[in-house]
Amino acid sequence: MKKLNIGMIGGGFMGKAHALAYAGMPMFFWPSPVIPHRHTVVDVTEELAKEAAAKYGFDHYATDWRQVVNDPDIDIIDIVTPNNTHAEIAIAAAKAGKHVISEKPLALGAEEAKTMLDAVTAAGVKHMVAFNYRRTPAVALAKKYLEEGKIGKVLNFRGTYLQDWSADPNSPLSWRFQKKIAGSGALGDIGTHVVDIARYLVGEITDVNAVTKTWIPERPVQTGGVDKLGTVKSASDVPKAAVDVDDEFVSLLKFEGGAVGSIEATRNAWGRNNFLTFEIHGEKGSLYFNYERRDELQVCFADDPGDSKGFRTVYTGPAHPYGEGLWPIPALGIGYGETKIIETYDFFKSIVENTEVSPNFNDGYRVELVADAILESAEKGVWVNIEKTVANIT
Amino acid sequence: MKKLNIGMIGGGFMGKAHALAYAGMPMFFWPSPVIPHRHTVVDVTEELAKEAAAKYGFDHYATDWRQVVNDPDIDIIDIVTPNNTHAEIAIAAAKAGKHVISEKPLALGAEEAKTMLDAVTAAGVKHMVAFNYRRTPAVALAKKYLEEGKIGKVLNFRGTYLQDWSADPNSPLSWRFQKKIAGSGALGDIGTHVVDIARYLVGEITDVNAVTKTWIPERPVQTGGVDKLGTVKSASDVPKAAVDVDDEFVSLLKFEGGAVGSIEATRNAWGRNNFLTFEIHGEKGSLYFNYERRDELQVCFADDPGDSKGFRTVYTGPAHPYGEGLWPIPALGIGYGETKIIETYDFFKSIVENTEVSPNFNDGYRVELVADAILESAEKGVWVNIEKTVANIT
Amino acid sequence: MKKLNIGMIGGGFMGKAHALAYAGMPMFFWPSPVIPHRHTVVDVTEELAKEAAAKYGFDHYATDWRQVVNDPDIDIIDIVTPNNTHAEIAIAAAKAGKHVISEKPLALGAEEAKTMLDAVTAAGVKHMVAFNYRRTPAVALAKKYLEEGKIGKVLNFRGTYLQDWSADPNSPLSWRFQKKIAGSGALGDIGTHVVDIARYLVGEITDVNAVTKTWIPERPVQTGGVDKLGTVKSASDVPKAAVDVDDEFVSLLKFEGGAVGSIEATRNAWGRNNFLTFEIHGEKGSLYFNYERRDELQVCFADDPGDSKGFRTVYTGPAHPYGEGLWPIPALGIGYGETKIIETYDFFKSIVENTEVSPNFNDGYRVELVADAILESAEKGVWVNIEKTVANIT
Amino acid sequence: MKKLNIGMIGGGFMGKAHALAYAGMPMFFWPSPVIPHRHTVVDVTEELAKEAAAKYGFDHYATDWRQVVNDPDIDIIDIVTPNNTHAEIAIAAAKAGKHVISEKPLALGAEEAKTMLDAVTAAGVKHMVAFNYRRTPAVALAKKYLEEGKIGKVLNFRGTYLQDWSADPNSPLSWRFQKKIAGSGALGDIGTHVVDIARYLVGEITDVNAVTKTWIPERPVQTGGVDKLGTVKSASDVPKAAVDVDDEFVSLLKFEGGAVGSIEATRNAWGRNNFLTFEIHGEKGSLYFNYERRDELQVCFADDPGDSKGFRTVYTGPAHPYGEGLWPIPALGIGYGETKIIETYDFFKSIVENTEVSPNFNDGYRVELVADAILESAEKGVWVNIEKTVANIT
Repeated sequence: MKKLNIGMIGGGFMGKAHALAYAGMPMFFWPSPVIPHRHTVVDVTEELAKEAAAKYGFDHYATDWRQVVNDPDIDIIDIVTPNNTHAEIAIAAAKAGKHVISEKPLALGAEEAKTMLDAVTAAGVKHMVAFNYRRTPAVALAKKYLEEGKIGKVLNFRGTYLQDWSADPNSPLSWRFQKKIAGSGALGDIGTHVVDIARYLVGEITDVNAVTKTWIPERPVQTGGVDKLGTVKSASDVPKAAVDVDDEFVSLLKFEGGAVGSIEATRNAWGRNNFLTFEIHGEKGSLYFNYERRDELQVCFADDPGDSKGFRTVYTGPAHPYGEGLWPIPALGIGYGETKIIETYDFFKSIVENTEVSPNFNDGYRVELVADAILESAEKGVWVNIEKTVANIT
Repeated sequence: MKKLNIGMIGGGFMGKAHALAYAGMPMFFWPSPVIPHRHTVVDVTEELAKEAAAKYGFDHYATDWRQVVNDPDIDIIDIVTPNNTHAEIAIAAAKAGKHVISEKPLALGAEEAKTMLDAVTAAGVKHMVAFNYRRTPAVALAKKYLEEGKIGKVLNFRGTYLQDWSADPNSPLSWRFQKKIAGSGALGDIGTHVVDIARYLVGEITDVNAVTKTWIPERPVQTGGVDKLGTVKSASDVPKAAVDVDDEFVSLLKFEGGAVGSIEATRNAWGRNNFLTFEIHGEKGSLYFNYERRDELQVCFADDPGDSKGFRTVYTGPAHPYGEGLWPIPALGIGYGETKIIETYDFFKSIVENTEVSPNFNDGYRVELVADAILESAEKGVWVNIEKTVANIT
Repeated sequence: MKKLNIGMIGGGFMGKAHALAYAGMPMFFWPSPVIPHRHTVVDVTEELAKEAAAKYGFDHYATDWRQVVNDPDIDIIDIVTPNNTHAEIAIAAAKAGKHVISEKPLALGAEEAKTMLDAVTAAGVKHMVAFNYRRTPAVALAKKYLEEGKIGKVLNFRGTYLQDWSADPNSPLSWRFQKKIAGSGALGDIGTHVVDIARYLVGEITDVNAVTKTWIPERPVQTGGVDKLGTVKSASDVPKAAVDVDDEFVSLLKFEGGAVGSIEATRNAWGRNNFLTFEIHGEKGSLYFNYERRDELQVCFADDPGDSKGFRTVYTGPAHPYGEGLWPIPALGIGYGETKIIETYDFFKSIVENTEVSPNFNDGYRVELVADAILESAEKGVWVNIEKTVANIT
Repeated sequence: MKKLNIGMIGGGFMGKAHALAYAGMPMFFWPSPVIPHRHTVVDVTEELAKEAAAKYGFDHYATDWRQVVNDPDIDIIDIVTPNNTHAEIAIAAAKAGKHVISEKPLALGAEEAKTMLDAVTAAGVKHMVAFNYRRTPAVALAKKYLEEGKIGKVLNFRGTYLQDWSADPNSPLSWRFQKKIAGSGALGDIGTHVVDIARYLVGEITDVNAVTKTWIPERPVQTGGVDKLGTVKSASDVPKAAVDVDDEFVSLLKFEGGAVGSIEATRNAWGRNNFLTFEIHGEKGSLYFNYERRDELQVCFADDPGDSKGFRTVYTGPAHPYGEGLWPIPALGIGYGETKIIETYDFFKSIVENTEVSPNFNDGYRVELVADAILESAEKGVWVNIEKTVANIT
């Protein structure tokens, strides 16, 4: 069975998720399109890289990502570093002829994303951006219903992504609160997942109109480089520095097909943990999904008899997308790991079968266009048309 | 015990709700501020009026509302007619020195609402607009938490009101789809309830930015004058006529206190019945309410210990607002009737104690300002400031 | 329109519920089978009776129930007193030729219930026992599905009724904790509702096997005669007296049709308010109901397509049992009041149409047989067969 | 870092779960107590074994488990075969000085389980039985609350385990429906998980009283040896054979500490997928858990203020048991895989630290005692005391 060698750039929590996916993919999807081989992991120091290799089961480790990108043994570059490094690594990888999967958001903005898209296109390599949530089986099931026309023409989409890990003013100023590293705040970090799902399920977004807010203007400077996602509370005497990204945005949406809607994302919603939801109203039915209860898709069919109409709670399992590869009974349970295993599976399949996978760098670029438009709209207080933004990208 | 005589103008389903409230109020809230006496009910024909009197327990009936408004035996005029008649009746009632309670929305628009407010103010009578949903005990509990600072300064408000009774293109063209009678569509009919709750809980809305949609441009002409709320499906050969109001709107909001948010209302959401919800994020906690499960308020307190933090589901009962008067155990259950009983109680108390009640005609007028601004915003594609709209009202 | 005069014996919270039902019934169900007239209310003192008449809208009041029972103007006797008085009043009423509706449980035990059944049967009057919860529209919808065979032959029934109003050891020793007045504890007070629903939906219970527990062996003696359902907390220096009834029971069940199951009832379940639930598994589907969310029935049909199978949440409304008379949109909301209005409607209809209504005194008697068997089973630690118990009743 | 070599006996879906756990454990829990090495996998044919090795990442494969058990390179034997083979393999492994982890239920009955317990005890090896569900972080959190006294003395436990994968009479007669292979039906397959959780959270069960039912007396004979859990529907002309185990049981429980309760398990509950739930009422609070929403624990504290008392929905994450090793944000999501990773971690830790782990073979034996007592009780229609059953085991 064919083996492909992976060079993973970054050894944080995302590295864990990806490593688990590489180990688990053939266990779930068999016959496996390919056996992913954890070849080399890169981290910023020798100590961290060595530990990452041991933890995540890589044969080798390194501190210089360029060396790995150019290693002829490596087939795939997996980018799990902070946002501001995606472009440079991805472009170098493409030039070296490697297939590339990058964590999301693809770049610091649409312009940068375009350079990445151009690079992978020119190189003819496979590319993917890791918007894993759309691969939750229940989300894929929503897509299936939509494609089959089960809920008819879409009228409305409401998406939210609410978290509270940084709602405490004492949660530290990780890179996720710094524009030069993260590009944007809640928008890039979590909002882009909803934009991806909106495009996936409903189609292109044409216009946005948004407000953004930075609720906590400064945060304690973080000691150590690790991204702890709010679990380390700083003492009150730690010096603080400014947050220059959004904590929250709300945006109206218009879609190409005529639907309207909204997206809201915030990291200041006490009690919401990973509250990625969408509700879609169509001419013949409705859908509701909440990732916090990710095994479930709610669907209402307008054509059900009057005395038994209502939202059905469908637990995904063997009868649903990806079900053959997953667990034999619904509600044994999809965790974060499984979403990454499915993502990995689809990426490797696209390599082996030489097909396009989605979301690829073009999707990542389109999401960045929407994100840029949201920021512009919030700044200027006007509707912003995406195609006009595209025209500004060289 | 003092008795006040009611003249109720209108005998439809809202008349039922109000009649039940008059009968039930002293049973729930005792000692009762006053005994409401169902004196006269008015409907459009003698037959309908006579039936309404029998059904709803009124001593008299009439077909001419003016006569009732001017009847010296009548203390209170209760307006449960379509929207386009509220102003004329209310103004006449005020001139006749009657206290007035009007169904919502108060008027066809802010300008008309202002004339009503001026009339009741000039007459010195008590006035109320029947936004009953804010009187759901769980909503009043949310207000209590907010006033006590339990969830801190409000950052965000998301409100929805979703229904599906007219999602079917064959549901008839009742007056609720005709601008000259209804003023607006989903906005006036259900959206104004959410605007009322937003103002009640978070404070004045200063700016809106909206889209509106009419998903079903024409509907079967209705036979008979009765408002059946979608339960009568017309045959396909019934002639159709144009809908000239919104089926749906989504609006961004800015509040005086700095909070932002959104409201969405639609009657095209299959599977949503009376899905009036709000979610509020504050600096110290969050609230969630869904009228479909109206006995419950969800609240998360940021200060709860780390290992037991999460949304609490509080079932309202004796320990909560209005609890003394309601049922002795939580979840015996608040229905639509109880919200109207509480509303009636607060209105009569304000009369007897000569205090202000809320929402009164000023609140109704403020809600109309927001509604007008939403329509203007949707038409022009810009943010609309409410105070600027006020300036245009004479 | 025909009018029937009611004599209501008892003026506590149940009196409120019944009075509301008399007032509201014609408003909901029109043309009304009859107009219920609140003629006379009885309470233990003149002061209480007078107040009850004013509150509940009765024309007259009295302190001697015998006088009311024998008043030729009275058509119906409504018994809303503690359990130990039901029999005497009902039998006297039957002898006086009055129709009788009694609060539940019908009696202190099966033997007493049998005497009541015999009395109403001999007198040829209409009789009903107020197990109102089975009249929740969602429960009636479950019955409809079962009768239509929608979920096939029933395999299993699990019922619960959980409350917490007396979970606090300082909640007072009301009559509900005294065997001589209440007959039994959680069993009679709430468990019998579940027994009624089990019989209604699944059929006769043939055998039971139970455990009972009295978790709080003594409680503060109550000052005043009022039944406050745990809302008054006694100071710790109040003298205590023994509880001689069950706080909780759990019972296995066997049904005539072959189904098995269980019932659990307790008043010591912190956080459960009025948690009356059932789950039924049939050969072709399943049902779930929770009164705390009483507008909803959950139903799963085995025949649904594999990719969209799951529990549907059906909100009851105009398309469901009693829907014509209730509110025009699902989820406007059924409260406790509406269940009593429906009950009253069915009772009056049975009088006017001279038909049998259920649950009548025979049903009340059958429920008492099951309750007695549960107590016997718990005491002896064995299965108890209901028919054998019947044989012991003279 | 120390490495331990695993010999896994069995290559079905449970093998997948265990293999994923071996691969993932160091990724989650770091520094890892040990690196699990997937040395050899055994399946019934060379072809299946070879495939299992490739899929699950084992270096070697074999078809003779005895050879693997006696391989000096192997440190741990992992038994993921049907129930009737556990004893022979485990005893041989213990004699060979290997640590043993066995899938559940431990044996075909208590007597057999006792021989296994004796063997591992005599050999001085570590042993574990794979009741993984108690390792769901939310269940471990329930344990923590109980140990801290947060909900006081336990009064009541209600457990359920409901599935529907074999509710269809055409789902095949896998080994799970054959007594000689499975020992019992729903009881051993899923009910024992609830018994394990009941013992874990509340303590020893002393007495049981049960009914069992076999709803589908015969099923199509299965072609092929694979356990498909109901996903393969047989054609109607396939010959059928008798089911000789229970499809369902309901049992009353008495616990050592005075609590009472019930357990229900069935594979005939349409719409329930993996509905493993428990509800516990204590003197100071209540707990509710449903594995279908396994990230959540519901807890109600009696001491919460009256106006904000109710069940909290706690999403497990870094602040809860095992949180340090899992995902950095609650509701990223625990799947079936994570429960197995945690189980593996605790087992390896017990080996390295030479401590006892639970549930071990003694727990597995105690669970079998309860299961045997349930079968005996159902057969005889009487309460069965566990200690008396113990006395019968040599």
